[in-house]
Amino acid sequence: MTEMNSNERMAAEWACERLVRQFAMLNDERDHEGVAALFTQDGAFARPFDPDNPIVGRENIMVMFRDRPPRLSRHIMTNTVVEVVSPTEARGRSYLMFVSSTDVESPRPVKAEPGVHVGQYDDTFVLTESGWRFQKRLGSLSLTV
Amino acid sequence: MTEMNSNERMAAEWACERLVRQFAMLNDERDHEGVAALFTQDGAFARPFDPDNPIVGRENIMVMFRDRPPRLSRHIMTNTVVEVVSPTEARGRSYLMFVSSTDVESPRPVKAEPGVHVGQYDDTFVLTESGWRFQKRLGSLSLTV
Amino acid sequence: MTEMNSNERMAAEWACERLVRQFAMLNDERDHEGVAALFTQDGAFARPFDPDNPIVGRENIMVMFRDRPPRLSRHIMTNTVVEVVSPTEARGRSYLMFVSSTDVESPRPVKAEPGVHVGQYDDTFVLTESGWRFQKRLGSLSLTV
Repeated sequence: MTEMNSNERMAAEWACERLVRQFAMLNDERDHEGVAALFTQDGAFARPFDPDNPIVGRENIMVMFRDRPPRLSRHIMTNTVVEVVSPTEARGRSYLMFVSSTDVESPRPVKAEPGVHVGQYDDTFVLTESGWRFQKRLGSLSLTV
Repeated sequence: MTEMNSNERMAAEWACERLVRQFAMLNDERDHEGVAALFTQDGAFARPFDPDNPIVGRENIMVMFRDRPPRLSRHIMTNTVVEVVSPTEARGRSYLMFVSSTDVESPRPVKAEPGVHVGQYDDTFVLTESGWRFQKRLGSLSLTV
Repeated sequence: MTEMNSNERMAAEWACERLVRQFAMLNDERDHEGVAALFTQDGAFARPFDPDNPIVGRENIMVMFRDRPPRLSRHIMTNTVVEVVSPTEARGRSYLMFVSSTDVESPRPVKAEPGVHVGQYDDTFVLTESGWRFQKRLGSLSLTV
C-alpha cells in the first residue's frame, strides 16, 4: 500500500461505495444490462436469497436478472465499509434492507409484502479500464423483521 | 466535464450528499429556516406525500414547513447517487424511509405511527456563492411497509 | 479552520463516518476489543438503550460489550453529518436503526424481535496518532416502529 496516499485510498473507497449504490438503483429500476455492466466479465454474484449458488459471468448475471418475474423492489443500502487492498483491489461489506411487492402496476405507493429482509453483501472489487467493478458479490440474509 | 478532475467530482458529489443529509436532520429538528436555506431563492420542493404539487421559492418552502402541525419524524436517507453534470450543476437520487409520530411531548422513544414509508428524492443541485444548494427536490413514495 | 482546505475537511469527515460504520460492523460481529479500540483511552460511551449512564474508559467499554448476553444484531447506520471543528476535533450525528434477536444459533435469517428501534448517536471525534477516534459517543432512541 505504499503506492497509495490517503487521498487515493479515499477516492477508491468512494468509487466502490458508489458502485454498491448503483447496483441497488439499477436493480430497482430493472435495468438488467446496467446491473450486469457493474461486474467484470468473469464476475460472480450470489443473491441474498440464494447465497450458496453464485452465478458466474456478466452475461449469465444479466440473464438471471432479465428472466425473473418483475417486482417493485427497494434495495436499501447502508454501512458500507471498503478496505483497499492494493491500487487495483478492494474488499467491502454493506448492509441491505430489502422491501418489495409483486405489484408493479398499481399507482404508488403500494403495500409491501410482509417482512423486511435484513442482510449484507460481501464484495470484492477490482479496478478495470472502465473503473472499479464487482469481481465477486456475495449476498446473504441475517434477520427478518 | 473536461474542466473537472476526478477529485473535484468526488468533492462535488460529497457536498451534494451532505446537503441531502442536512435536509433530513434539519427537517427532523423542525428548523424551518435551516431547511429553507438549503434551497436556492427560486428553488422548488415537492413533498414525498404530495409529489404533484411542488412549492416554489425559498420563502414559500419555509412557510410550508413552519405552518404544518409538529411531528416527531425521522427522515432516514440512504443510497444517494449524484451525477455531476458540470462544475456548477448536479443531479441525484436518494432513498427515503420515513417514520414519525404526532406525539412530540412524551419521553422518547415513542411508538411510531404504523407504516414505514419508503420513497425517494430526485434532486437537482446548483453551485451558488454559498455552496451547493437544491434547485429542485422532488419527493415521491414507492412502498409502504 | 483557516488551516484546513476543503479537501482536508472532506477527508476528516470521511474518516469519522468510516469510524461510525466500523463501530456498527464490529459491534454486530461481537468484536469487543475491536469496538473498544475505536475510542480514545478516556473515551465515553452511552448505549442508545441507556442514554443517561455513559461508560468511561476504553477498558470499561470493552468489558461492557464482552459481558453482555450474545445477540444477533444489526446496527443500521445512516444520515451521518460530521462538522469538523478544528484539524483535530469534529462532531457528528448519525441515525441508527437497531434490529436484533437473542437467537445466535439458528441458521440465518432468523426472525427479529418485534420492534425496530430508531435512534441516533451524537459523537465527538478526536484525531489521535492512530487516526480519528471517538472521544464521546452518546446514543439515544427516538421512535419504535
